[in-house]
Amino acid sequence: MADTATVRPLRASEVSSWDLEADVVVVGYGIAGVCASIEAARTGADVLVLERTGGWGGAAALSGGFIYLGGGTALQRKLGFEDTPENMEAFLTAALGPGVDKAKIHDYCQGSVEHFDWLVANGVPFNEVFWGEPGYEPPADEGLMFSGGENAAPFNAIATPAPRGHLAWTKDKKLGEKGGGYMLMEPLAQTAEKLGVRQEFDVRLQRLVVDDDGRVVGVAAKRYGKELFARAERGVVLATGSFAYQHEMVERFAPKIIGRPAATVEEHDGIGIRVAQALGADLAHMDATEVALIADPQVVVRGILVNGRGQRFITEDTYPGRMGQAVLQDQDNQAYLIIDEQALEAAFETKSSMSFLRIAPTWVAETVEELEGEMSLPAGTLRATIDLYNSHAEHGQDPFLHKKTEWVKPIGEPLGAYDLRGYTGGFTLGGLRTDLDSRVLHVSGEPIPGLFAAGRVTSGICAGGYASGCSLGDGSFYGRRAGVAAAKGD
Amino acid sequence: MADTATVRPLRASEVSSWDLEADVVVVGYGIAGVCASIEAARTGADVLVLERTGGWGGAAALSGGFIYLGGGTALQRKLGFEDTPENMEAFLTAALGPGVDKAKIHDYCQGSVEHFDWLVANGVPFNEVFWGEPGYEPPADEGLMFSGGENAAPFNAIATPAPRGHLAWTKDKKLGEKGGGYMLMEPLAQTAEKLGVRQEFDVRLQRLVVDDDGRVVGVAAKRYGKELFARAERGVVLATGSFAYQHEMVERFAPKIIGRPAATVEEHDGIGIRVAQALGADLAHMDATEVALIADPQVVVRGILVNGRGQRFITEDTYPGRMGQAVLQDQDNQAYLIIDEQALEAAFETKSSMSFLRIAPTWVAETVEELEGEMSLPAGTLRATIDLYNSHAEHGQDPFLHKKTEWVKPIGEPLGAYDLRGYTGGFTLGGLRTDLDSRVLHVSGEPIPGLFAAGRVTSGICAGGYASGCSLGDGSFYGRRAGVAAAKGD
Repeated sequence: MADTATVRPLRASEVSSWDLEADVVVVGYGIAGVCASIEAARTGADVLVLERTGGWGGAAALSGGFIYLGGGTALQRKLGFEDTPENMEAFLTAALGPGVDKAKIHDYCQGSVEHFDWLVANGVPFNEVFWGEPGYEPPADEGLMFSGGENAAPFNAIATPAPRGHLAWTKDKKLGEKGGGYMLMEPLAQTAEKLGVRQEFDVRLQRLVVDDDGRVVGVAAKRYGKELFARAERGVVLATGSFAYQHEMVERFAPKIIGRPAATVEEHDGIGIRVAQALGADLAHMDATEVALIADPQVVVRGILVNGRGQRFITEDTYPGRMGQAVLQDQDNQAYLIIDEQALEAAFETKSSMSFLRIAPTWVAETVEELEGEMSLPAGTLRATIDLYNSHAEHGQDPFLHKKTEWVKPIGEPLGAYDLRGYTGGFTLGGLRTDLDSRVLHVSGEPIPGLFAAGRVTSGICAGGYASGCSLGDGSFYGRRAGVAAAKGD
Repeated sequence: MADTATVRPLRASEVSSWDLEADVVVVGYGIAGVCASIEAARTGADVLVLERTGGWGGAAALSGGFIYLGGGTALQRKLGFEDTPENMEAFLTAALGPGVDKAKIHDYCQGSVEHFDWLVANGVPFNEVFWGEPGYEPPADEGLMFSGGENAAPFNAIATPAPRGHLAWTKDKKLGEKGGGYMLMEPLAQTAEKLGVRQEFDVRLQRLVVDDDGRVVGVAAKRYGKELFARAERGVVLATGSFAYQHEMVERFAPKIIGRPAATVEEHDGIGIRVAQALGADLAHMDATEVALIADPQVVVRGILVNGRGQRFITEDTYPGRMGQAVLQDQDNQAYLIIDEQALEAAFETKSSMSFLRIAPTWVAETVEELEGEMSLPAGTLRATIDLYNSHAEHGQDPFLHKKTEWVKPIGEPLGAYDLRGYTGGFTLGGLRTDLDSRVLHVSGEPIPGLFAAGRVTSGICAGGYASGCSLGDGSFYGRRAGVAAAKGD
């Protein structure tokens, strides 16, 4: 690791002159940074954002753009879905655990309706159209979708299913030209600018600056190779993203995702985590990762997903991010999709936002036995799995994994298989431990004075599980909290 | 958490008087602590051990007592097993990864033969008898055993199988009166005493004491509720064990093991990790856990282990700690053992060190279909698994999981099943990041001056996997290194 020594805090007395000064210094201009900036500026604070790239956006602007909200948002109600904060909390506790920060999840669910209204009030429009088919994202500009397996086993027996994947929408742009995340970020960045938030680009965080009492009073950074010191009168907000692209950290904390970063950006180098660790900041859930299975859910749901031994292991009608986690974490990154010709033809007639697997299967065969041979699976493997599946599917049932009856159909012949071994990728979810005011917690349990954080530099609402929209969700929600708390200068 | 604020480092200038002084202060008197003490004392240093209980031992003395060594130890050679450091390294890299500290594993394998000789020279005897049957531990006082699945798939195809679980033995004590770990600890504690190592008991670590340059120069502790300060002229060695009994840390880092600590002691409260984190120490593999499946391997190997869906998932002739990890981490803590009457009778005639499952099965039945019903498994589940297994077992083969031919026999009727849901427990493997000299590494990558650590307070050779004997192995090996380095006072 180059320059690692620089993560140690710098004493303020060693800073000969400050290049920049503000009440609140926000580091990173993705979703957490922009929300922190807006809220801090609204209190009247002078806000300065330092961003390492040449513009606002971060991973958020390049993402699909889901923001996970519920409890009865205006959009949910408009589209006829009932939800309560308690129902949302029951789902998230089951889906994101074990070991979730219960206080954070409770807080997040209680504040979710207000947070939706805040986004709208800050210029983010949501299209009042629901997309109900399987997928990672809606195919066009629909604004609401199931994004975490809420309507699939086992969660549909734990909480009343409600779609909570909210997607921002801009009338004059077509999805595809820009991602959904851009549609979320653009109005927020415009709002921040209107509020007078100052922006400095191409500035890379190096170290935190602390006074003699250990309070964070600024940051040391680099721009074009030159040192730059920014003083924060009231507080510093770290919004620098995950460590998905810091190889040593991935190797030490989340080794299953080594070599397969996805849905993230190269700027996510864990620097915000390391400069805070150097001050004694605590961490949480450093092994947790979002993992996508790179396969069109419209195809997957019409077949059966099997592991390297030809066994089913997860219901095919759930959130594909759950499938990805199961494949990478529990099935040694081995998976195949088995689908018959008729089902594949039906799948190809559907709309989808993802073209993955809209190609011919890796192997095709007239019979199950022939397919086993082509796949080099031991004799009888697929035969046993398919016979058992079909014996229940004939009655519309899936007593093992509880796929919903509408998707349960016997697998016929001819049929094919997609080789999905290694078709996973994702980003890290672990990071700094923060409280409900986004204060970075020291390992002693006390907040580190002057230091706040939000977004994927922190451990948010996710422990091990994931639902699409949780990162933009807790990043924006606790970004706001960070802005408010930093402006107070506690 | 009570007293959490106390984990912050204390300035030496705030210590009005030192109650104890030594060249090297070792905190914790388990395997890492005793080995550090011996090596430090051998250099001529004045060594003081602070132990929170009333005597030496730690988790080590209560453990089964395997120490994982190889590469051609005198005991391996005497018993006719060939091994090389390279062969051992190939196995450990595959079995303990992904994300292992490669430099540490290489170093450990290269030094393993010498380390065995060192143990012998320091009074630890090993009985020259090999135990070759399945089990967690040998039934009597055998001194060598396979303890990590070296002779089972997939590892027997990656490295030449060699047994590396070495067990200490004392002629005048019978195993059962004391565990194998006691036999290892007792001679080492006696050696330390002979070398003049001073011991203070009932002393609980609270904080590290640092000088104005950030160097660790002592510890603040408590005895009978009163503060006690011990000055370390050259270095402090943390050997305080894991965080298996610190609930908040388990919840935040290794939540799957919540509520199921095993093979550990209540003193393992993570304090050594936290006081070092407060100095900016880095961590590694905080999610990693040893997990035992609490079932007699002699019974397990003669049946088939299936998950909650009645599917096989791991070869039944491997290290039972691998089975435990697979059950807890990948199979939602759901497992059943299916075994027929004939195989069970054969199992009951074997010797074993563990009486788990030497009882009647949870369910017994005349037929597979009847058993499925009793277990409330969906119709056809076990039938499909057993038919497929038997179709290959008739030819002595297990093409899915590669159980060795000697253990592959068709499952007949009548038969039974043991309910092993939740029959797992273990301890945490993650902790402080250290270098090959057992220096505690700051998040910057540099050593923290004056601070050393070994044993389960550190992340040792294990990333996610485990083999029995790795904890006493790296604890003793890097305990020695810590003693040597601390005595040098680097």
